[in-house]
Amino acid sequence: MSDTSTMGLFMISNPVFECYAFYGSILILKMIMMSFLTALQRFRKKVFISPEDTAISKGGGEIRYDDPDVERVRRAHLNDLENIPIFLITGLLLVASKPQVMIANNLFRIYTFVRIMHTISYAVFVLPQPTRAILFIAGAVINIIMVAYVILSMHYF
Amino acid sequence: MSDTSTMGLFMISNPVFECYAFYGSILILKMIMMSFLTALQRFRKKVFISPEDTAISKGGGEIRYDDPDVERVRRAHLNDLENIPIFLITGLLLVASKPQVMIANNLFRIYTFVRIMHTISYAVFVLPQPTRAILFIAGAVINIIMVAYVILSMHYF
Amino acid sequence: MSDTSTMGLFMISNPVFECYAFYGSILILKMIMMSFLTALQRFRKKVFISPEDTAISKGGGEIRYDDPDVERVRRAHLNDLENIPIFLITGLLLVASKPQVMIANNLFRIYTFVRIMHTISYAVFVLPQPTRAILFIAGAVINIIMVAYVILSMHYF
Repeated sequence: MSDTSTMGLFMISNPVFECYAFYGSILILKMIMMSFLTALQRFRKKVFISPEDTAISKGGGEIRYDDPDVERVRRAHLNDLENIPIFLITGLLLVASKPQVMIANNLFRIYTFVRIMHTISYAVFVLPQPTRAILFIAGAVINIIMVAYVILSMHYF
Repeated sequence: MSDTSTMGLFMISNPVFECYAFYGSILILKMIMMSFLTALQRFRKKVFISPEDTAISKGGGEIRYDDPDVERVRRAHLNDLENIPIFLITGLLLVASKPQVMIANNLFRIYTFVRIMHTISYAVFVLPQPTRAILFIAGAVINIIMVAYVILSMHYF
Repeated sequence: MSDTSTMGLFMISNPVFECYAFYGSILILKMIMMSFLTALQRFRKKVFISPEDTAISKGGGEIRYDDPDVERVRRAHLNDLENIPIFLITGLLLVASKPQVMIANNLFRIYTFVRIMHTISYAVFVLPQPTRAILFIAGAVINIIMVAYVILSMHYF
């Protein structure tokens, strides 16, 4: 039963998958937090997106789409949407490619770090550019490296 | 061959995976429907997003980004994008964590129910708040519970 | 060890998974390119989204959300976000359903082709409608077919 060629790779007992699952979980929690950070800014600034929402704001509120603090968090969230779900799929493909464990785990770690820093530099403490640009590019490059590894580890393509 | 420790978990013969695949399929169909619901509202209101689109609307149309009915469906769709893809990844991680079957299956069921109700309360029959807020938070909490289970079931982290 | 009923399906040695991983990789690279295409248009038109971004543009720039070239690329990117991540999850579910290899592989190929054509017709060379509408619908129909196959291949639902 030690013939690893027939074992499932997507289980917590596979160290690469476990590392993927850990950092993937962190990134998913980070993304869920963005919704609550947006809601926090909306209630703080009393700026809402749908007419029915003002009913749950003490002291009322107005419908506006141009509040800089709210829109900043929303842009950071959209940037996450553009990057993290496809990274999470890429991670699964990388696990399936049986990568060298330490390399894969460090890619997962660095990616998670740069994306958390990206959010902080975009929506928490606004840092001067090119900080955010560099963090964005670092994440994209890691994702591209992972995709390249997946494609190059194939036999028939 | 009954040594389940080496079996692949991500196959329809695994009851948790099958339940995940079923409710995941429902959520995916629901998301695809949002695009068609947006298109329906656009043709009904004759309000389009790109200049070339007016050519396929009988009776013409205009380019506007502020039609309340169209934008409402689009906001519901964006809310899906912010939530459902990461839930679907979380579901895979949960399956890989070999959860207690009934608990996992009920989490999948309840999540699917609250997300469908969220869409209905946002974009079909607009219900007074905090209905939509409660449905949104319920979905987020289920996702957080699933992530917590995945992390807590790990051995090395 | 040739009892394939217990083998992991999500590994590169499974031909359907390998094909999925290849076309999934292409689609992920395509999506990453959208971010860079947006950045390219922003620097070309000197139109940025956040105040701090103008600092890295030679010759300055302004904050505007209505540049037609920038917004066109962003709409194509959003359309990708609405479609490709859920397709990638559907692909995993299809692999887990042990589909007929040639059918599954051709669905992956055609989907990838129509989505690349969709982006080209939307954001590179703007083609008259209904070109983009047909490409969008073709992708959605393929995704629906895949979901239908997944659900119909289940035993207990």
